Amino acid sequence: MKHIKVKDLLNSAKPLDDVLVKGWVRTFRNNQFLAINDGSTINNIQCVVDFENTSPEMLKRLTTSAAVAIHGNLVESQGAGQKYEVQVTKLEILGDSDAETYPIQLRNKPSLEFLRENAHLRVRTNVFGAIMRVRSVLSFAIHQYFQEKGFVYVNTPIITGSDAEGAGEMFRVTALPATGAPLNEEGKVDYKQDFFGKETNLTVSGQLEAETYAMSLGQVYTFGPTFRAENSNTSRHLAEFWMIEPEVAFNDLDANMDLAEDFIQYVIKYAMDRCQDDLAFLNQRLADEEKQKPTAERSEMGLLEKLQFVLDNNFKRVSYTEAIDILKNSKPNKNKKFNYIIEEWGADLQSEHERFLVEKHFKCPVILFDYPAKIKAFYMRLNEDNQTVRAMDILFPGIGEIVGGSQREERLDVLQQKIADLGIDEKELWWYLDTRRFGTAVHSGFGLGFERLVLFVTGMTNIRDVIPFPRTPQNAEF
Amino acid sequence: MKHIKVKDLLNSAKPLDDVLVKGWVRTFRNNQFLAINDGSTINNIQCVVDFENTSPEMLKRLTTSAAVAIHGNLVESQGAGQKYEVQVTKLEILGDSDAETYPIQLRNKPSLEFLRENAHLRVRTNVFGAIMRVRSVLSFAIHQYFQEKGFVYVNTPIITGSDAEGAGEMFRVTALPATGAPLNEEGKVDYKQDFFGKETNLTVSGQLEAETYAMSLGQVYTFGPTFRAENSNTSRHLAEFWMIEPEVAFNDLDANMDLAEDFIQYVIKYAMDRCQDDLAFLNQRLADEEKQKPTAERSEMGLLEKLQFVLDNNFKRVSYTEAIDILKNSKPNKNKKFNYIIEEWGADLQSEHERFLVEKHFKCPVILFDYPAKIKAFYMRLNEDNQTVRAMDILFPGIGEIVGGSQREERLDVLQQKIADLGIDEKELWWYLDTRRFGTAVHSGFGLGFERLVLFVTGMTNIRDVIPFPRTPQNAEF
Repeated sequence: MKHIKVKDLLNSAKPLDDVLVKGWVRTFRNNQFLAINDGSTINNIQCVVDFENTSPEMLKRLTTSAAVAIHGNLVESQGAGQKYEVQVTKLEILGDSDAETYPIQLRNKPSLEFLRENAHLRVRTNVFGAIMRVRSVLSFAIHQYFQEKGFVYVNTPIITGSDAEGAGEMFRVTALPATGAPLNEEGKVDYKQDFFGKETNLTVSGQLEAETYAMSLGQVYTFGPTFRAENSNTSRHLAEFWMIEPEVAFNDLDANMDLAEDFIQYVIKYAMDRCQDDLAFLNQRLADEEKQKPTAERSEMGLLEKLQFVLDNNFKRVSYTEAIDILKNSKPNKNKKFNYIIEEWGADLQSEHERFLVEKHFKCPVILFDYPAKIKAFYMRLNEDNQTVRAMDILFPGIGEIVGGSQREERLDVLQQKIADLGIDEKELWWYLDTRRFGTAVHSGFGLGFERLVLFVTGMTNIRDVIPFPRTPQNAEF
Repeated sequence: MKHIKVKDLLNSAKPLDDVLVKGWVRTFRNNQFLAINDGSTINNIQCVVDFENTSPEMLKRLTTSAAVAIHGNLVESQGAGQKYEVQVTKLEILGDSDAETYPIQLRNKPSLEFLRENAHLRVRTNVFGAIMRVRSVLSFAIHQYFQEKGFVYVNTPIITGSDAEGAGEMFRVTALPATGAPLNEEGKVDYKQDFFGKETNLTVSGQLEAETYAMSLGQVYTFGPTFRAENSNTSRHLAEFWMIEPEVAFNDLDANMDLAEDFIQYVIKYAMDRCQDDLAFLNQRLADEEKQKPTAERSEMGLLEKLQFVLDNNFKRVSYTEAIDILKNSKPNKNKKFNYIIEEWGADLQSEHERFLVEKHFKCPVILFDYPAKIKAFYMRLNEDNQTVRAMDILFPGIGEIVGGSQREERLDVLQQKIADLGIDEKELWWYLDTRRFGTAVHSGFGLGFERLVLFVTGMTNIRDVIPFPRTPQNAEF
């Protein structure tokens, strides 16, 4: 007999005889009301146990997280809070869960930190079940958005022999022994004897490879893991995270901004449409959390309000030069409240400045563009002023930078000069330069850090809580 | 003025005035007929150049792979082979492509090997454009299949501190210096000083982590990169490849087989529906290639026939024991044509045996199940005979193993014994064993090698040709 998912039972159009439910016990009240969850929805199905005809031994085994199979009839519920419940006719324990040793005791309100150490079990709580379902739906929305528009999904390499991306510190990948690796004549490790015959690292970005594909397939996107070996123990950084990188031939920076804004609004709307129960729960969770804070520190909007706000409002587009003017004349700058005082054009913006612009000044998502060339990557299109590049960062309230992108430098000679100025050997990038040698054209793209998007949509505040098994300094458990 | 994609022009319902096309030159015939492709489809739009009113210098620049912007009118074509063409009114070169130095000279029929060395440019050919579009559509079909069924997409970790998966040789991931890494008291590398505080590797499978999620969310799947540091220089192996791993609570092996078969048929049908032009081209390519072979070696079916055959026929389900009987009594075994002669029950099947079963004996996809425990992984469910496990492999013609899966051992004591027998420290798998300690239940899953599926659907024969930038021994270019 096939079991029916909890979600389908709760959405049933009519009462049903002889149903089979399989799932895990969430709670068992009054020796009678058994709440079963199977992951198909955040909601439980209430199963009413005929306790007078059930052995005390069996009743004792109905502990949190025990796996059960329940036969019964789906009937309209007399109690408040649910439309249907299952009148149990037969109860089977598939797998016990010892109440004494089961690590997650909900009545003790386990902290997010404690749950992180039990990442294999935390998904059994409402909050992590909700987060992971929302994460999954957002992933699909991303694919659907690009596929509907005719983009080609490209799997750029994870192991890269190219070390010129310059986006951050890299992890080395090797099959050589950890001690006693073969050395070359210079006394350095002889990577010719390593698996790939050269030094290899984990990718920090698929952009350069994606560009080569965009210059033939027109519109492409990546969605895969990327890595940073940076010792950043913050609530916004992971050593391993997922990134989406669209790249579009013939798009200039304006078209790139249009794409990014439309894309973000689409995927947020998709999640709001498809994850109503999970987002309602997360909305309430955040509201409860906010209540613990002093009134002055509470955010002005609830989670669902904040998401709707992003859908209803255009992102404010502001040039770097305008932003510097705003910051220079801002109260926290004049009162020296910023850790880094903005004194002149050319300064790199810190998280505190970005947050001021988004959360205090504009109070909406902001796209900053046309940054000084000196603080941005070599592949960005130099403007006619020879000072700024066609870069853009999208800043979100509570999150900071969620997107970084640019129009790419399509002129071979300008790009070669930039590479030379950085002291990068042009031979390292022969294939990248080929895109400018043969049929070059204006093109643009951006990278969106997926976990930052999930943070924003779920209202969580630590990035370690929105990826199943976070990788951070000193932590690669599971 | 916004340009229109080639695909949309070719599908236009009516002629259009004043259109703008952007793309790359594929061919230029008779100083007049310019074939432009922009990656949106395998088909080119023919643009008719008014050569009498175009400068000879401009005409010379219309070389293969030059990027162009073309203004003109979309009119019904007088010539055969296309419904519409563009009568060019204005021609603009966006980026030249020097015919002397452009590496891919189609008239020289570049070999697949040569194109592999130019993986950044090979996507500009019809065959690789088609492959990569099909690959992308298959990726989406996979997500859509699982999402429609309510599965949750789980990103299991790429960097793993767990070394008990046992699926193959692993790449080490480290941020320590290649020479002079700090040593501990035993004279071994002190991984406590490495980034994660322990030895870490690239994942060979997300299964164990996915199981922990399935035991709460019910139905989950992974789709991400996996790695093998095996020195296999074959047309079927990559060091970095993408794998799909669904895992389902309460599914036994029969349900697992049903899921795998339904899933594969769904994604193949999806690609056949959405990639008709690309698959027609690849069908013809394979037919042309087959013509070069002696008649006896030609395959009986064309590509599209073969795909349709998989949709129309159930996969043949055969126990390992039955398969051994068939092999033992087969002609190549009796005539000692196999490299590995099958002598008795318990033998591990080689690729030659799998191909015999699929291609000669059954002539359809085959699911082998109930393998000897000794040749399969520790986590597979032991049958009541104490000899075989609830494993399954799906074998495809021309590809061999495309899926490997099993019902998982859900009994804590049996699993602990297996782990002890293998000499694995139980502490390494504490979190995996927790799934059996708390609410264990029957569950099953499988892994499908994505590139092998793409090989099958595109009719290509070397796995390096179905991933954008292949990673193989001595090769990590780009």
